[in-house]
Amino acid sequence: MNSESFFTESTKAALKNNPPGEWMPTLPDGCIRLSSGFPAPNLIPVEQLQAAVTLLLEEEKDLPLHYVGSPKMAKLKEQINDRLLRRGIRVSEEELLITSGACQAIDLVARIIMDHETVVAIESPTYMEALEVFQNYTKHFISIPVDENGLQTNKLEAMLAERKREGLPLPRILYTIPTFQNPTGTTMTMDRRKHVLELAAKYDFLILEDDAYGELYFDEQPDPLKAMDNEGRVMHLGSLSKVVAPGMRIGWITATPELITAVAWFKKDLDHPFAQATMASFLEKNDFEKRLKTLRETYQRKCTVLLSALEQYMPKPVSWYVSEGGYFVWVKIAGADTSELLTHALDEGVSYIPGKHFFLNQQDGAEYLRLSFSYAEEKEIVEGIQKLSKVIKRILL
Amino acid sequence: MNSESFFTESTKAALKNNPPGEWMPTLPDGCIRLSSGFPAPNLIPVEQLQAAVTLLLEEEKDLPLHYVGSPKMAKLKEQINDRLLRRGIRVSEEELLITSGACQAIDLVARIIMDHETVVAIESPTYMEALEVFQNYTKHFISIPVDENGLQTNKLEAMLAERKREGLPLPRILYTIPTFQNPTGTTMTMDRRKHVLELAAKYDFLILEDDAYGELYFDEQPDPLKAMDNEGRVMHLGSLSKVVAPGMRIGWITATPELITAVAWFKKDLDHPFAQATMASFLEKNDFEKRLKTLRETYQRKCTVLLSALEQYMPKPVSWYVSEGGYFVWVKIAGADTSELLTHALDEGVSYIPGKHFFLNQQDGAEYLRLSFSYAEEKEIVEGIQKLSKVIKRILL
Repeated sequence: MNSESFFTESTKAALKNNPPGEWMPTLPDGCIRLSSGFPAPNLIPVEQLQAAVTLLLEEEKDLPLHYVGSPKMAKLKEQINDRLLRRGIRVSEEELLITSGACQAIDLVARIIMDHETVVAIESPTYMEALEVFQNYTKHFISIPVDENGLQTNKLEAMLAERKREGLPLPRILYTIPTFQNPTGTTMTMDRRKHVLELAAKYDFLILEDDAYGELYFDEQPDPLKAMDNEGRVMHLGSLSKVVAPGMRIGWITATPELITAVAWFKKDLDHPFAQATMASFLEKNDFEKRLKTLRETYQRKCTVLLSALEQYMPKPVSWYVSEGGYFVWVKIAGADTSELLTHALDEGVSYIPGKHFFLNQQDGAEYLRLSFSYAEEKEIVEGIQKLSKVIKRILL
Repeated sequence: MNSESFFTESTKAALKNNPPGEWMPTLPDGCIRLSSGFPAPNLIPVEQLQAAVTLLLEEEKDLPLHYVGSPKMAKLKEQINDRLLRRGIRVSEEELLITSGACQAIDLVARIIMDHETVVAIESPTYMEALEVFQNYTKHFISIPVDENGLQTNKLEAMLAERKREGLPLPRILYTIPTFQNPTGTTMTMDRRKHVLELAAKYDFLILEDDAYGELYFDEQPDPLKAMDNEGRVMHLGSLSKVVAPGMRIGWITATPELITAVAWFKKDLDHPFAQATMASFLEKNDFEKRLKTLRETYQRKCTVLLSALEQYMPKPVSWYVSEGGYFVWVKIAGADTSELLTHALDEGVSYIPGKHFFLNQQDGAEYLRLSFSYAEEKEIVEGIQKLSKVIKRILL
């Protein structure tokens, strides 16, 4: 029997254009993980989550272990609503859906909005998982470059105007990570935020705003696009993966009631009562603002350590953006092929993610790499940069 | 802004043909829930799961709270493989994928196999959630009736032969719950099992075997289709929802490596490390065979209580199938409209699921209803049947 003969044409096309595969080799033992976009292990509230489960099951017994029935499910929505209010986002209950992380939300939005003819505008570079998801639905992308001030909205405007003039199909949706972008760590300026909202209205597209890092600012909290949106064009994604624990798989999406109804209808993994109720119990018993303060201070310190190490150890052809929040620093090595370089870096005992994975046209990313300062310890970060610098000097100079 | 204008044509069609909606009114306080396909509350291992979390986080610290990294994730696959072996199913690691319950697995299979032209063969009646999922992809169904011996394979064969003769498209897939079917509680005989596998080979279709209740037999464990399949045509779905706790959302699918690769590729909620590692820790520390024995005995007793109460209290025009496992009893009230009757039953304080929800053509289900003996206590079951009998006599006779 030939299993593939049962696939739909769109499944066959997706698997062909965007073949499943590992994008990271197995890391050697003891490797310093500057590749991992994971929270710092010592910032994962292990004991508090343990206590939250104990308390939850003492209070609610079997309720959070059925399909439905735990009062904590509604509680979690309230708690997330409270987080949104602090980001300046005011939504009703019908405008909020809990998902299994932001990644599921991205897939669900793609599911209702994108087919093989849909044009999707993306940042270049962008979050690789999102790119992977979108490529399961369409081949039609408009890549708009990102600089140190985020998405270059003037280039977006020029592209839109040109397509309109030429009668080409316009994008139905723009996917953007305006705040502490993955992978570049950059943040869209307020002027550009206003500009992109104007363009969405003028050219009638939706904006999928991925705000997974928004609460992890070092000095200043930028307003999300969703807080500036009067038309319902912005769908806003959030997550507790970066600020509590990714293994809990708690994310959410806010959008118009019509969009949320459709997204919810196609979300067929049902709810996750145990994980969601545990999270609600955790949030109830812990001071989240205090927690965020610790996270911000810790990640700012780690980022400073990384940036200082880059200053101190990196040779001339290496440059980078200075991040003001989030998890990442984006590095350019003029003339390099960072994908080839990775093998040598792993041999030396340090990992990163080659830039190519964040670009639709992978060759555009050859000179870039993403470093994460979130997971490794400060001492390891310095050591990792020393190792990376050594490899660059040996291989490239 | 009109949100719907951004939907794809297939999203619009799915929402139109299969509109989101609640299929059950809110149950009044104190209502006896013969509608709920939930495990018995006292059989949910609350303390053992609490202990499993405590132990897990003591042993593994932050590992099960990241995206990946808990050794328990691989452990769970081994444990599920062990359960499959006891059902006579031998699969390699590449043939098994953990999902968020069986429901997500159903959606993922639909996602890779079904588009708007795909013909899908289903049992009539069948699991309403599966029907809802399939209707998001296609309108082309072949409904094959189920009797007390399960799917009527001779009718399936006749239908296939006729379609072939007339040059009509043949089904790409058959969805079946051969063992303790939802909603009828019936089990496909061995002869019919052999027959359906022959038909799959002859007419070249896949079989999606939903085996969520297979371990909950009262006297005899029927062989799953997957255990009799030499060709890789059977995709087998399992779940710990009915035998541990649905709120953990642990299910799985076994199929050929090619099918599993595709299904995994479209599964964009990632893994659920906390829930999966907790389950692995629970399974490691508890005697599952002993647990299953208790479950079987308890549900058999409850089923007997329900069947006796039906015998004792139901008036003439009511008949039912005798279940030999699972959670459900399927009842026919000749001449009734069980959907209308529900309002009166709820007023009286007892719930069930009207038959119409389990049929593609809802009017085919007017005389039927599904009773669940899993959730309510024995005393409540008797009381519930007394109430239901009273309503039937008052309204229909």
